[in-house]
Amino acid sequence: MRISVLLFDGFTMLDAVGGYAVLGWLPGAEVEFVAERKTIVADDLRSGGMAAWRDYSEVESTDILYVPGGPGGRPQMTNEATLAFIRRLHETSTWTFGVCNGVEILAAAGILKGKTVTTNYYARESVASLGAHVVPDRYRRDGKIVTTAGVSAGIDGALYLARLIAGEEIAKTIQLGIEYYPHPPFSYGSADDAPAHIHDIIRAAEGATLEAQMNAKDPRFLQPSL
Amino acid sequence: MRISVLLFDGFTMLDAVGGYAVLGWLPGAEVEFVAERKTIVADDLRSGGMAAWRDYSEVESTDILYVPGGPGGRPQMTNEATLAFIRRLHETSTWTFGVCNGVEILAAAGILKGKTVTTNYYARESVASLGAHVVPDRYRRDGKIVTTAGVSAGIDGALYLARLIAGEEIAKTIQLGIEYYPHPPFSYGSADDAPAHIHDIIRAAEGATLEAQMNAKDPRFLQPSL
Repeated sequence: MRISVLLFDGFTMLDAVGGYAVLGWLPGAEVEFVAERKTIVADDLRSGGMAAWRDYSEVESTDILYVPGGPGGRPQMTNEATLAFIRRLHETSTWTFGVCNGVEILAAAGILKGKTVTTNYYARESVASLGAHVVPDRYRRDGKIVTTAGVSAGIDGALYLARLIAGEEIAKTIQLGIEYYPHPPFSYGSADDAPAHIHDIIRAAEGATLEAQMNAKDPRFLQPSL
Repeated sequence: MRISVLLFDGFTMLDAVGGYAVLGWLPGAEVEFVAERKTIVADDLRSGGMAAWRDYSEVESTDILYVPGGPGGRPQMTNEATLAFIRRLHETSTWTFGVCNGVEILAAAGILKGKTVTTNYYARESVASLGAHVVPDRYRRDGKIVTTAGVSAGIDGALYLARLIAGEEIAKTIQLGIEYYPHPPFSYGSADDAPAHIHDIIRAAEGATLEAQMNAKDPRFLQPSL
C-alpha cells in the first residue's frame, strides 16, 4: 500500500508526522515523501527539515494521498504544479487524506465541491467558500475523502482511517504502539471553547510566521537536491 | 532560549516532532536538530528523514536538551559519543526532556540515578535497572528533568513543560495552535489497559523494525553531509 505524503515549503511538521506515525505502521505500508523538488523541505518554524525524496513526476498514482497543512499551504493554493499533482493522484487514489489547512489546498484543487469536510479552525470559511460543506469535527469521512481539524487532529483522523483500512484490532495496536492515550495537562474541549483573546494571539503568530518564512534569506540548513 | 533536539539513526519521528511542535512555539525559542554527524537522519520506518544541521561538537550548552526515543535508541545506550554529549549538556541545561525510550538513553548516560521518571511502557524495567524510580505516568517532573511515556506522550509532556517555562496562558495558546483537543476514535485508558495479545504484536513489530533497520542496505533517501 503506497502512501504519498506531500511536503511543501512552510508546512507544519506535526501535520505530516502525526498521521504518518499511524499510517506508516499499517501492514504493507510503503510511505514516500513527495515535493515539487527533491530536497530537504523547511517547515513553518524554519528549524525543521524533512527529506522529500520523490518529486511530482515520479508518482503516477498512489493508494493514500496525504496532504498536510501549515502557513506555507497558502501559496500552494495557487501553485498549479501542486494543484495538478493533487487532482491527478486523487483521480485514482483509494483514499485522500487532508489535515489542517491541507484541506484548503484540496479545496483549491477543486476536489471538495459538495463534499462534507472538517479543517483547521481558521480555514473553515475559506474551505466553505471553495464549495465544501464544513463541519466542526475532529475528523470526517465523505466517501474516499477523510479530513481532520488542525495539526494534532491528524493523529485521530489517521487512527480512524487505519480502522477503515485494516480493522479495529490493528488500529488499536497502532494506538498502543504510539501510546496515544492523550492526557493534556489542561484542556478546553475544542478550539471553539478557547476564548477570543487566545484566538487573536494565534492568528497574529501564524501571520508573523508566514511573513518570516516568505522573507527567510537564511535557512538553518542546506536545501540540497537529493 | 536554545532547544537542542537529539536525532539518531532509527529514531521515532513523532517522539521528536510531538514536543517540537509545542516547545518550538515558546516565545524566543530557537530550535536546533543535533546528531553525531550532520546529515539526513533516517527514522525507524526508514521512510522519514529529518535534517540534523548541527553536530555534537557545535553545541556547547543548551537551555532544553530534548532526547526522543525509537528502536534506534538501543544502540545509542552504548554509543559513548552520544552518552558524553548528553552528560555534558545536562550539566548546565535548564531543562532535560526525555520522551519514550529516550528516557532509557538518559538513564544509560547515568543522569537519572535516584530520579523519579516515566518512560515508554516497554522500557520501564530497563530504566529502573539503571537506577531510576519509574512511575506509570503520562509525564513526570523531577527537578529539571521532565520525562514522558511513549511517542505521542511527548506532546502532553511538552505542554506541561511549556506551562512551567512560560505560564498557563501561553501553554494554552500553543495547545490551540496545534488544536490539541484529542479525541481518538477508540481508546483504552492507558497502555496498561491494553490486552496482552496486543502488547505481544507491538513487541514483535518493534523487534522486527530494529532488525530491519540495522540491516538496511538501501536507505530510501540519500544521507549526504550537510
